[in-house]
Amino acid sequence: MDRNSHSPRFVRQIPDGDTRTRSVCETCGFIHYENPKVVVGSVVTCEDRILLCRRAIDPRKGYWTLPAGYMELNESTEDAARREAREEANALIRIDALLAVYSIARISQVQIIYRATLENRDIAPGVESLEVALLPWADIPWQDLAFPSVRWALTQFRSVRDKQVFAPFANPDGETGDLVPGQAGL
Amino acid sequence: MDRNSHSPRFVRQIPDGDTRTRSVCETCGFIHYENPKVVVGSVVTCEDRILLCRRAIDPRKGYWTLPAGYMELNESTEDAARREAREEANALIRIDALLAVYSIARISQVQIIYRATLENRDIAPGVESLEVALLPWADIPWQDLAFPSVRWALTQFRSVRDKQVFAPFANPDGETGDLVPGQAGL
Repeated sequence: MDRNSHSPRFVRQIPDGDTRTRSVCETCGFIHYENPKVVVGSVVTCEDRILLCRRAIDPRKGYWTLPAGYMELNESTEDAARREAREEANALIRIDALLAVYSIARISQVQIIYRATLENRDIAPGVESLEVALLPWADIPWQDLAFPSVRWALTQFRSVRDKQVFAPFANPDGETGDLVPGQAGL
Repeated sequence: MDRNSHSPRFVRQIPDGDTRTRSVCETCGFIHYENPKVVVGSVVTCEDRILLCRRAIDPRKGYWTLPAGYMELNESTEDAARREAREEANALIRIDALLAVYSIARISQVQIIYRATLENRDIAPGVESLEVALLPWADIPWQDLAFPSVRWALTQFRSVRDKQVFAPFANPDGETGDLVPGQAGL
């Protein structure tokens, strides 16, 4: 985009041969396709404890989440999961299995969640985390989780924790992943 | 983007608190994040035959591929797989399992591939297909497949065709998915 010799002037129209309205530059005809974004993360364990991060940024600042974030260009999904664990919790992880693929259609997000283990106990908050913790199952702050999909991933993880081979999960039946403002416990 | 009151003028810079160079509008500070794109598709069978589509569009026009394509906004991955089968082969499919999640890092693409069955034998080429076919395994045109990941998906599908539950596949070891121009058989 920085290589264009003009500033784009976008109008909304259906390009020839297409069926959907897109942003099209009226100067050069460039079509700005908008696509779903990929979030990659992991449920990371150390023995019987689960790694959670308390968010230092909006949305849902102060609430607990998995180490997860937007995939960057030119990386693999596995590399993205390892990078997010490193950035958010200074954690070195080993990916074990694909746990889930969720679709949060309203916000056009695909979430790819792995099951992983900590390589060692050295964890510390990154700039996007207020604190990080290794929590036993009984101490998971269900009322203070950042997003519905964090609850899904933890619950589904629990159901396959003794299985080597399993089919990854999707959204629980009827759940869209949308945050309902003010709803306790998501 | 169509709601902006000015034309964006993008410059490349590292935003405050970020670690990567992004396109930033020098008028308003808008950051245009660029993200990997999601391709969703499926290996679709009808009894012992596999649905393949011969591409009517570049890249790899004339070569055979799975019904697959870019995910649109506001849909789930499963809906995207069903839509692509309908658009490319006028096929009604039933998704059975998640077969694979591939990363083609050089072109920043995530491919999510399901295993599915045809609901009925009515198939016909859509506008992006020259022809569609239900082929027995022995007739798959390995030398004329459009992309390496089509070969991966077919081969991995074959290895789990009798399994109800299996862990989905990733890229085969050492394979990046890049097309090598002129290379026969991918």
